Amino acid sequence: MLIRPMRPDDFDAVWPVLRDIARAGETYALDPGLDRAAGWALWGEAPRATFVAERDGAILGSYYIKPNAAGPGDHVCNAGYIVAPAARGQGVAAALCAHSLAEAARMGFAAMQFNMVVASNQVAVRLWRRHGFLIVGTLPGAYRHATLGLVDCHVMYRTLHDQAG
Amino acid sequence: MLIRPMRPDDFDAVWPVLRDIARAGETYALDPGLDRAAGWALWGEAPRATFVAERDGAILGSYYIKPNAAGPGDHVCNAGYIVAPAARGQGVAAALCAHSLAEAARMGFAAMQFNMVVASNQVAVRLWRRHGFLIVGTLPGAYRHATLGLVDCHVMYRTLHDQAG
Repeated sequence: MLIRPMRPDDFDAVWPVLRDIARAGETYALDPGLDRAAGWALWGEAPRATFVAERDGAILGSYYIKPNAAGPGDHVCNAGYIVAPAARGQGVAAALCAHSLAEAARMGFAAMQFNMVVASNQVAVRLWRRHGFLIVGTLPGAYRHATLGLVDCHVMYRTLHDQAG
Repeated sequence: MLIRPMRPDDFDAVWPVLRDIARAGETYALDPGLDRAAGWALWGEAPRATFVAERDGAILGSYYIKPNAAGPGDHVCNAGYIVAPAARGQGVAAALCAHSLAEAARMGFAAMQFNMVVASNQVAVRLWRRHGFLIVGTLPGAYRHATLGLVDCHVMYRTLHDQAG
């Protein structure tokens, strides 16, 4: 698996993954009717950097890094990860997360924060914990899950001091 | 004190307050070099609603309300409050906060979240607590305070079930 910067033409493969995750309404706080232009703005333009994981020419997943806040808060970054359905359960998210931690440190960020980790997404919570994130707080009922109704969200945070930088 | 929707021409009075708060770098995660156009986009355009507190024709302060997240997270709102230096210590922030809670409920929001309450801003932390907000978590060193260096930030949250709605 190669993780490299996303090129504009990669978005043909990234977009259906992002669109279906938005539509599903189970893991991300995205407009379920997100269209491709808004998806590109969100995933390709707004972030400081966007990467894809590729194997044999197929896009397995993608992640972005951006400052989580402006000005005096811009040393803390935020990242988001998506994995193509056919590539799930193969360690792609773990590889993307590990890559993002090193990349964020290299870019000069001091910490990484996830603002809304949907508590019912236990695979993700476990994965982020394994990558050094702590649950710093839990927002009661902050997510309207498509099938579970109101579920809690975790705010997760980790410093990047252990990363090469 | 009258609290009413902000009109575009009110921004002549709101902008210097917002600008100086951004410049000071002690309470908000705003670009310290925020210019008026970006300030208007942030305070006047992006929010769902913006209000001002007025007395004898003078603007005492202002607040905005907006969804804190998209899609399945858009039942939780975020609000931000500013008070003109000459009007501080007169209960303006408390009045704005109380107004915002009722207004947010009226708009259909189920909860309100503050993402980055700078822990050294003890007046604000106390005020939000008094208005029913709980500290759900603390982000270590998430704010580079202009004089104190790295300080923690609280994520604060409250439901709006007690509000008229």
